[in-house]
Amino acid sequence: MGLCQRWRRLRLSGLQTCRLHTAAVPAPPQWLAERLGLFEELWTAQVKKLASVAQKEHRTIKISLPGGQRVDAVAWSTTPYQLAQQISSTLADTAVAAQVNGELYDLERPLETDSDLRFLTFSSAEGKAVFWHSSTHVLGAAAEQLLGAVLCRGPSTECGFYHDFFLGKERTVRGSELPALERICQELAAAAQPFRRLEASQDQLRQLFKDNPFKLRLIEEKVTGPTAIVYGCGMLVDLCRGPHLRHTGQIGGLKLLTNSSSLWRSSGAPEPLQRVSGISFPTMEELRAWEEGREEAELRDHRRIGKAQELFFFHELSPGSCFFLPRGTRVYNALAEYTRRGFSEVKTPILFSTKLWEVSGHWEHYQEDMFALQPPDSDRLSSSLSDHAPSHPADTLALKPMNCPAHCLMFAHRPRSWRELPLRLADFGALHRAEASGSLGGLTRLRCFQQDDAHIFCAPDQLETEIQGCLDFLRSVYTVLGFSFRLALSTRPSSFLGEPCLWDQAEQVLQRALEEFGEPWELNPGDGAFYGPKIDVHLRDALGRPHQCGTIQLDFQLPLRFDLQYKGQAGAPERPVVIHRAVLGSVERMLGVLAESCGGKWPLWLSPFQVVVIPVGTEQEEYAREAQRRLQAAGLVCDLDANSGLTLSRRVRRAQLAHYNFQFVVGQKEQSKRTVNIRTRDNCQLGERDLTEAVQRLLELQNTRVPNAEQVF
Amino acid sequence: MGLCQRWRRLRLSGLQTCRLHTAAVPAPPQWLAERLGLFEELWTAQVKKLASVAQKEHRTIKISLPGGQRVDAVAWSTTPYQLAQQISSTLADTAVAAQVNGELYDLERPLETDSDLRFLTFSSAEGKAVFWHSSTHVLGAAAEQLLGAVLCRGPSTECGFYHDFFLGKERTVRGSELPALERICQELAAAAQPFRRLEASQDQLRQLFKDNPFKLRLIEEKVTGPTAIVYGCGMLVDLCRGPHLRHTGQIGGLKLLTNSSSLWRSSGAPEPLQRVSGISFPTMEELRAWEEGREEAELRDHRRIGKAQELFFFHELSPGSCFFLPRGTRVYNALAEYTRRGFSEVKTPILFSTKLWEVSGHWEHYQEDMFALQPPDSDRLSSSLSDHAPSHPADTLALKPMNCPAHCLMFAHRPRSWRELPLRLADFGALHRAEASGSLGGLTRLRCFQQDDAHIFCAPDQLETEIQGCLDFLRSVYTVLGFSFRLALSTRPSSFLGEPCLWDQAEQVLQRALEEFGEPWELNPGDGAFYGPKIDVHLRDALGRPHQCGTIQLDFQLPLRFDLQYKGQAGAPERPVVIHRAVLGSVERMLGVLAESCGGKWPLWLSPFQVVVIPVGTEQEEYAREAQRRLQAAGLVCDLDANSGLTLSRRVRRAQLAHYNFQFVVGQKEQSKRTVNIRTRDNCQLGERDLTEAVQRLLELQNTRVPNAEQVF
Repeated sequence: MGLCQRWRRLRLSGLQTCRLHTAAVPAPPQWLAERLGLFEELWTAQVKKLASVAQKEHRTIKISLPGGQRVDAVAWSTTPYQLAQQISSTLADTAVAAQVNGELYDLERPLETDSDLRFLTFSSAEGKAVFWHSSTHVLGAAAEQLLGAVLCRGPSTECGFYHDFFLGKERTVRGSELPALERICQELAAAAQPFRRLEASQDQLRQLFKDNPFKLRLIEEKVTGPTAIVYGCGMLVDLCRGPHLRHTGQIGGLKLLTNSSSLWRSSGAPEPLQRVSGISFPTMEELRAWEEGREEAELRDHRRIGKAQELFFFHELSPGSCFFLPRGTRVYNALAEYTRRGFSEVKTPILFSTKLWEVSGHWEHYQEDMFALQPPDSDRLSSSLSDHAPSHPADTLALKPMNCPAHCLMFAHRPRSWRELPLRLADFGALHRAEASGSLGGLTRLRCFQQDDAHIFCAPDQLETEIQGCLDFLRSVYTVLGFSFRLALSTRPSSFLGEPCLWDQAEQVLQRALEEFGEPWELNPGDGAFYGPKIDVHLRDALGRPHQCGTIQLDFQLPLRFDLQYKGQAGAPERPVVIHRAVLGSVERMLGVLAESCGGKWPLWLSPFQVVVIPVGTEQEEYAREAQRRLQAAGLVCDLDANSGLTLSRRVRRAQLAHYNFQFVVGQKEQSKRTVNIRTRDNCQLGERDLTEAVQRLLELQNTRVPNAEQVF
Repeated sequence: MGLCQRWRRLRLSGLQTCRLHTAAVPAPPQWLAERLGLFEELWTAQVKKLASVAQKEHRTIKISLPGGQRVDAVAWSTTPYQLAQQISSTLADTAVAAQVNGELYDLERPLETDSDLRFLTFSSAEGKAVFWHSSTHVLGAAAEQLLGAVLCRGPSTECGFYHDFFLGKERTVRGSELPALERICQELAAAAQPFRRLEASQDQLRQLFKDNPFKLRLIEEKVTGPTAIVYGCGMLVDLCRGPHLRHTGQIGGLKLLTNSSSLWRSSGAPEPLQRVSGISFPTMEELRAWEEGREEAELRDHRRIGKAQELFFFHELSPGSCFFLPRGTRVYNALAEYTRRGFSEVKTPILFSTKLWEVSGHWEHYQEDMFALQPPDSDRLSSSLSDHAPSHPADTLALKPMNCPAHCLMFAHRPRSWRELPLRLADFGALHRAEASGSLGGLTRLRCFQQDDAHIFCAPDQLETEIQGCLDFLRSVYTVLGFSFRLALSTRPSSFLGEPCLWDQAEQVLQRALEEFGEPWELNPGDGAFYGPKIDVHLRDALGRPHQCGTIQLDFQLPLRFDLQYKGQAGAPERPVVIHRAVLGSVERMLGVLAESCGGKWPLWLSPFQVVVIPVGTEQEEYAREAQRRLQAAGLVCDLDANSGLTLSRRVRRAQLAHYNFQFVVGQKEQSKRTVNIRTRDNCQLGERDLTEAVQRLLELQNTRVPNAEQVF
C-alpha cells in the first residue's frame, strides 16, 4: 500500500505548529494538499450556490420550535444554530445537532422548508452519538498527522468512539504512542475547527479519496445515489453522512483509552487495521467525573476482585474457561448448592453423538456454536470396515451446549406414568459453546460454564402450579442475593411452531401464574421463542445495573422431537410439556455479577472470607489455633493471622480490608474464659462471646443465608 | 474367500452322525479329507521315527517326581502320563498337562532327558489355561462342522475361552445357533478324541493349511524356525503350540456363553470375524456350581443394580458416558463429598490447548487416548490472517484426560512461597479418555468419568508427613466402605527420569511412611512409574474381589516440565514435589464396585433408599406426609408408600426388598403420639420412637458414616 510512510514525515513539524492553535499547519504532503484544494474549491462553489438559491427563492418558511413556539425563517439561509441562539445562548452553546422533521441536521445546515425543529444535546443518547462521532474525526485527523494513518472508519459506540486505520502490514500502534496522539486530539479540539458539510458527486468523491483505497472501496460499495456527503474539518476531509458538532471546540474533554488490532472485512482480501478508542465530553469536569466513576467500576470489576481475593484466574492455554481457586470454588459450590434444593439433581454426559443434536434441532440451528470432534480411531476403523458392526456406529461427537436434550433422553429411557409427574431434573453439567476468542470476557462470556439448569416435565394441567413454584423460588433466591427484578411475558412470535390453541392455553397459564404471583409484569407480544412462550426475568443488582440471568420457558417442541410420552390417568399415552428453568443462569456469570454487586464484600453464606482469628500475642496462638479448628470443623472458612510482626490494630485493619466478615480477636482474657472478641468488617465491635455460641450463631446465619450477618449477629 | 460355504453342506449329516459317538463321520469335504490324510501320513511317520529313536538309543533317564521321589524312565518312550499312573490313578485322571524342566508338555509326549517333572491340574491357573485352550479346539471343530467356519484363533482367557472364525463377510453367528453348537461341542467331548502332537516342516504346514488363508498368514508371520507344532483331534487339525489335554473326554462340562463380532488384525486388510466364547470344567458338577455363582454375580452386577434401583443408565448416543439418575447422583455426590474433606477443592477447565499436553508430556505419550478438536472457525480465520494477532492463537484443543497439568498451571499462576506449602488441591472435573467402544463396559471402563483427584505440592521435607496423611485418609475411607487393602511400594524402574539420589531419598521416605503406618506392605522393585516411585493400593471388597482404585504417586517430572518453583525459606527458588493421590479412583467405577460389594444394600450414609414412611391406613396419610417432609427437610432420602391397595405387611415387605434401610410405619397410635414405628431392611423391629429423635439419630448415623446403621440405630 505504501501510503503509510508519507504523512509520517510531518509528525514533528505538525506537533509543533498545532500548539499555536492556528490553521497555519506546515505545507501538507502533495496528496493532502490536492484533497484540501479540491475540497475548498467545491466548498466555495456550494456556498455560492446556496446563497444564490436563497436569494433567488427568498422564501419565508415556518418553523415549530420545541415548546410549541412558531417562528419565521428564510429558506436555504436560516440555520438551526441561529434559531437556537434566539431561544437561549445556553441552548446554542450546548446543542450538538438538530432534528428537522425527524431528520438529523448539522446546526449550521440551512433549513429548506417548513419544519418541526428539535435540538439534541449531549444528555440524550442521540446527542452523545453525534458528539462521539464528531470526536472520532478529531482522532482520525490526529492519526493522519502523527502516524501517517490511512483512515478507514470511525464510529461512535455505546460509550465513546474508536477509529480504525491502516499503518502498513507490519506497524501497530503502541500504548506509549497514545499520550502524543491524545495531545494532538486535544489541540485539534482546542483549535475549534468547524465541520463543513459538502455534497459531492461520485466523480468528485473518487477524486477526493484517490489516495485512500478503503474509502474508494466504500464509495464503490455504499454510495448508490449520484451524490454523497463529505465533511471537511481543519486539515481533514472524510466521507461521512454526519451530522457533526458545529466545531471541534465543543469537545471540552477527550481521552484516548485503548489500542488494539482489528480487521478490514469489506470485500477483497482482509487487511490488518489498528484501532484506537477514546471517550469525550463537552467539559473537562464531565471527563473527570467519568474517570472517577470508571475507577470505581474498575475497583468493582469482577476480574479485579477475582484476582485480589484469589477466587479465580484465566489462562491462555484454555481460553474462555475459568480456573476456580479454592476460595472461588467455595463461592461457586455454595451458589450451586442453593439452587439445587427442591430439584432432583442428575448427572449427564458431556459428549454426545451429533445424532442427538439432530433430533433436538441444535445441529441445524446451533452447529456453528458447538465444539465437534471425532470418536477414537479404532471406532472409525471398525465402522468403516463392516456395515454390520452391531454396537456403536462411529458418529461424530459434540460437546453439549445445553442440558435439555440429555434430560429428554433421561425422561424417555423407560416408560413413564402420570404418577411420576412433575419430574424435576436439575443438572450442573459443564456446557461448552464455541464463542470466538475475541468475544470472550471475564466470567461474562465463556466457552465453558455451568448453569443451574433445570427441566420440569409435567402434564399440561400441572403447568400453572409449576410456573408458580419457579417464580416463588426465583423470588426467594433473588431476595437473598439482594437483587430486584422485573418480569415480562413474551408471547407467540409470528414464526411459531405448534398448535395455536396450545399456545393460547399456555400463554393464559403463564399470565394467570404471573397475576397470582403478585409482582408487576409487562407483556412483550410476539417476543416468545419459536418453541413456546416464556417469562423473561430482568434483575437489577445492588448497584442498579441490569442483568438477564433467570428464565422460565415453556417448550412444546422438545417433547415432540423426542417423542416423549407418559401413560395418562386414563391409560392412553399423553405428551408432557417441558419447562426450562434457570435462576442463576450461568453460575460463572452470576458469580461475577455478585462479586461486582457486593464489591467483594460477600454475604456470610457465600463468603470465602468468613472469619479470621487474631491472637493478641504469641501466648494466645495455641488457643487461636484451637478456635480456628473448631470453626473449620463446623464447615466455616476460617483463617489465622498470627503474624506477630504486626500490631493487633494493623492486623485487624488488614482483615477488614480483606473483607473478612468477622474478626475473632483472642487475648489473655478470652483464652482463660474460652471466648472470642468479635468485630465485623465494618469495624463494628460486637464484644466478647463464648466460642461455642459464636460458632453456633455463625452456622445459623450461614444456613439461613441472611444478607447482613454482621448486623444481626 | 468362498471357503465358508463348503463345509456348511455337512451340517445335517454331521449332526446326525455325531450322536453315534464314533469316528464314523460321513466323508468330509475334499479339502478336509486331504488335510486329514496328510496329517495321518505325517503322524504315522512320526510315531515310527520316535519308536525307532527310542529303540536305537535305549537310554535310561532319571525323573524327579513331585514330593522328591526319583524314578527311571526310557528316553523317547516313557510319557508323563505313565508316570502319573504310577503315582496314583486319581492324579493320572485329573492331570491336564505336565511341566518338564519348566516347559509345558502334553501328558502323552515322551520324555527325552533327565527331568524334573510336575503335573498340572485344573486347580492351578496354568492348568485352567491348558484345559480351556483344549476346549476351544472342540469349539473350533464344532464351528467347522456346523457352520463351515474358517478357523482363525482360539485362546483361553482368564475365565474360559473363545474362538474367532470367518463365516464370509455377511454372515454372523446368531444367538439362536449357540445351543446347536454347544450340543456338538458336548458330543465331541464325550467322544473322547485324543489330541495328537505333530512336528511339521514349514512346507508341510503350508500344505496342511492351504485352504485356510488365516493360518497361511500366521505361518508366514509367526513360524520362524524350520518346524512348528500341529495338533490333530478327531476331524480337526490346527496349528498350535499346545499343550493340550490327553483327550476331549476330560472335558466333563462345557457351556457356550456369548456370540459377538471381532476383527482379524494381522497384516493386510482387516476381516470381520465371528467370536463365540464359552467355559468348561472337568466335571458337570463344577459347571453347575459355576453357573450358580454366575447367577449370584449377575444379581450383584452393578449394571443390574443400577437399573433395578434406578441409579443410572447408558445410552447409545453417548457411548462410554453414564447418565446418573437422581438416586445415583445422590450416591455419587455423597462419595465425592466424603473425599473432598481436608483438601481445597478447585474447578479447572475441561478443554485445553494441546500446547499444555505438550508441556506435560501427554501429547507425546497419550495422544491416541485423548479427544482432540478444533477451535471455533472465527479463531482459525483470525490466526491465519494476521501473524501479529495478539490474543489467542488458534491451537488445537483436547479434552483433559487427567487434572494434574491444570493443577500445575494453578500452582504456577502466581509466585509461591514456602509458607503456602503443602498446597493440597482436589478436583472433581470431568475427564475424557478415548477408549475404543469395544472396550467399554458398565461403570468399569468409561470414556467420561471423574476422579477424586488430588495433588499435593510440597517441599521435599514435607513428603513423609503428607504421605502419612494420605495413607491415614485412605485407611479411614476404605474402613468406612468396608474394604480391606494391601499396600505395595514400587521403586525405580530401569528407564527412570531424574536424579538417582532424589529417587533414593524419595523411596526411603515412602518406606518410612509405610513402616510408620503399621499395615503390612510388600516391595515391588523396579515397578515404579518413570516419573517417580509409588504406593499401589489393592483393595478387596466385601466379596473378597480385588480392585485397584487408590494410588499415591510421587512425581519429580511435572514440577520440572512446568518449571514449578516457590521461594524457599532462605529466599532462593526451590522446586516442589508433586504427590498424585486418589482414594476412590474413578468415582464412577467405585460406585459400581460398591453397588456390587453391598449387593444394592447401601450403607445409610450412601443410601439412595434411606427411609420409607408407611401409613397403616388412609387416616394416617397426612401425618405420614408430615413425617416425610421432616425427614426430607433434614436432607434425608425419604419416600412414602401410601398405596392403600396393598396390605401393610405387603408394603413393608416391598420396602425391604427395595432395600430401604428403614421403614417408618405410622398407625393411629403413632400419629397421636407423634412417633414412628421403626423396622430395618433385615426386618428387625426397633419399635416406637419419637419422630424428632428418630430424625436426629438418622442424621448422626449418616454424618458419622457408620456401615451398620440398622444394627446400631
